[in-house]
Amino acid sequence: MPDQPSISSRVSRLRALLRHSGVAAFLILDLKNIRYLTGFSGSDGALLVGAGKPVLLVDGRYTTQAGKQAPGTRVVLYRDKATGIADALSEGGVEHVGFEPAVLTVELHSALRRKAKKVRWKPLPAELSAIRAVKDDKEIESIRRAIRIAAGALRSTLERIRPGVCERDIAIELEYTMRRMGADAPSFDTIIASGPNSALPHARPGSRKLRPGDFVVIDYGAVWRGYHSDETCTFAVGRAGSRHEKIYGIVKEAHDRALEAVRPGVSCREVDRAARGVIEKAGYGPRFSHGTGHGVGLDVHEAPRLSALSDAVLERGMVITIEPGIYLPGFGGVRIEDTVLVEKGGARVLTEFSKELQVIG
Amino acid sequence: MPDQPSISSRVSRLRALLRHSGVAAFLILDLKNIRYLTGFSGSDGALLVGAGKPVLLVDGRYTTQAGKQAPGTRVVLYRDKATGIADALSEGGVEHVGFEPAVLTVELHSALRRKAKKVRWKPLPAELSAIRAVKDDKEIESIRRAIRIAAGALRSTLERIRPGVCERDIAIELEYTMRRMGADAPSFDTIIASGPNSALPHARPGSRKLRPGDFVVIDYGAVWRGYHSDETCTFAVGRAGSRHEKIYGIVKEAHDRALEAVRPGVSCREVDRAARGVIEKAGYGPRFSHGTGHGVGLDVHEAPRLSALSDAVLERGMVITIEPGIYLPGFGGVRIEDTVLVEKGGARVLTEFSKELQVIG
Repeated sequence: MPDQPSISSRVSRLRALLRHSGVAAFLILDLKNIRYLTGFSGSDGALLVGAGKPVLLVDGRYTTQAGKQAPGTRVVLYRDKATGIADALSEGGVEHVGFEPAVLTVELHSALRRKAKKVRWKPLPAELSAIRAVKDDKEIESIRRAIRIAAGALRSTLERIRPGVCERDIAIELEYTMRRMGADAPSFDTIIASGPNSALPHARPGSRKLRPGDFVVIDYGAVWRGYHSDETCTFAVGRAGSRHEKIYGIVKEAHDRALEAVRPGVSCREVDRAARGVIEKAGYGPRFSHGTGHGVGLDVHEAPRLSALSDAVLERGMVITIEPGIYLPGFGGVRIEDTVLVEKGGARVLTEFSKELQVIG
Repeated sequence: MPDQPSISSRVSRLRALLRHSGVAAFLILDLKNIRYLTGFSGSDGALLVGAGKPVLLVDGRYTTQAGKQAPGTRVVLYRDKATGIADALSEGGVEHVGFEPAVLTVELHSALRRKAKKVRWKPLPAELSAIRAVKDDKEIESIRRAIRIAAGALRSTLERIRPGVCERDIAIELEYTMRRMGADAPSFDTIIASGPNSALPHARPGSRKLRPGDFVVIDYGAVWRGYHSDETCTFAVGRAGSRHEKIYGIVKEAHDRALEAVRPGVSCREVDRAARGVIEKAGYGPRFSHGTGHGVGLDVHEAPRLSALSDAVLERGMVITIEPGIYLPGFGGVRIEDTVLVEKGGARVLTEFSKELQVIG
């Protein structure tokens, strides 16, 4: 749980946005934003941040929990969410409200317009999605802790990752071990993709058994107190031929150049370019079919995005992934991913596994 | 994966709704609805069902998978979702579209209105949410399979559920065992709530160790090929006193009366009443703080709802839970939940555990 000084400073930053955006209050519906701004970790609710004490609206399941986790708010119980929000707006005399357009549904929006007829609604896209991008020390410590748990679990699962074992069984063991080691949950459905399956960036672990000569892509992470880790290791199973070494070498070079490009003030586009340039120059441009990275925190994917289209600029305290890849249908793929902290001097790698090509099994 | 005849009959049922609703096409965004109507199980996409062949819109990750899983559709790749949908509407000459208001976000809705200026939009609440309520034989078989896996896992975990073991460790073992036995995933975060924690209907398993004299509420389920199971067993740990027997007996009576009330043509409200009446008569009405049940299928909670406010009427082939409870702060709680199939003659219980009071550990 974040401490109260962090919470107040987050709410203050939100209030500064409020003044610039010309609305009297923000209606926050994204549960991760609510957790960030209050400490409340329930599965439903709404937060109203205006001039006064923030109002945290929850249903009957969560009044006790909200009171404990979010002492900086006034907790209000609702039976019907739209009615609860409309009543809180009217009580606060709020007539112009900013909201998260990627979260508010048409259904809830219609109900709110019906129940709070005087209120004008303004979508607030960019500012809010970036509010969590820069992490404070406690958040960084939580991400480190998540990384430590995940890496410990992979280390202790590693000897079971060998020819004859199927992808799904590896995923189950790894997730189980992360939880035994203290993870709230896995960060996402673990990817264990071997042989030709490793050529699919979003493969689901299946019944395929590892074979010598495979690449196996292991994309995994743990959640600790709400904070995610994210790392991808690609290993060669049994042996590595010259094609393995070549492809791995190009991706590793792309990964290292991107790491070097990370620095406060640099645009995310430039970091993407650093990785993509290496892969394009080697003739595999079309085989790198995704962005170079993303922010990591209360969500495993959050601002900033590191892609060719990204306008974001890196700041000190951001935690991001660097994860170039090359995917060759029929043969296999390589992705190399670290989670890094943006510091004054550049990137500090937080993830723990060596990214040199390793032969396992 | 559903067979193609089931898929066609589902799409036909949707088309019948289309004729009644006065729109030319439905835009389906709920991923479970998309899976139901096409077989496609990816994590993003959109489906357009009008007069011609349904159009399944997916991003670059999913074109191959969509082609394999959804042969009844025309698969169209999009780079930007709103643009893809707008283009498909304009290509089909569709000018009046129904949508799911609880799923469509204000952001996507605005983008669609901008990009498809001629199109009029109509929210379609009730009909669509109920389209999956009645299950066919294959779906029922998948739910049974999920139930069998979950029950097998609980049986083999049961001997570890004893005094001194903490809730969280039981949850981890049970979820691990379900996956080892073939589950895609747990149906939801397993609830293991012991002693005073069992008085919280939505408790999260924590570090509390089981003690003799506890109730332990185990609410768990498995997913098999997308279909969920849902069952709650409440056990007495070590011993059961007269208060345990009394509370358990009332909930069991409520559960049994609700089961007897289940029959095609009966309203969900009546089933809720049957359970609630028993608990109210015993003086614990305010301690039964949730509905009596809900539909189960591709979502663990889906139509119909069984509550005091529900307008839905039971039909043959619905699969629903019956799960009354009493929660006594400080002492503990009891919830007894079966998943049942609505048949001509009444409820057929699908879940496998005996619901007589059992002392374990």
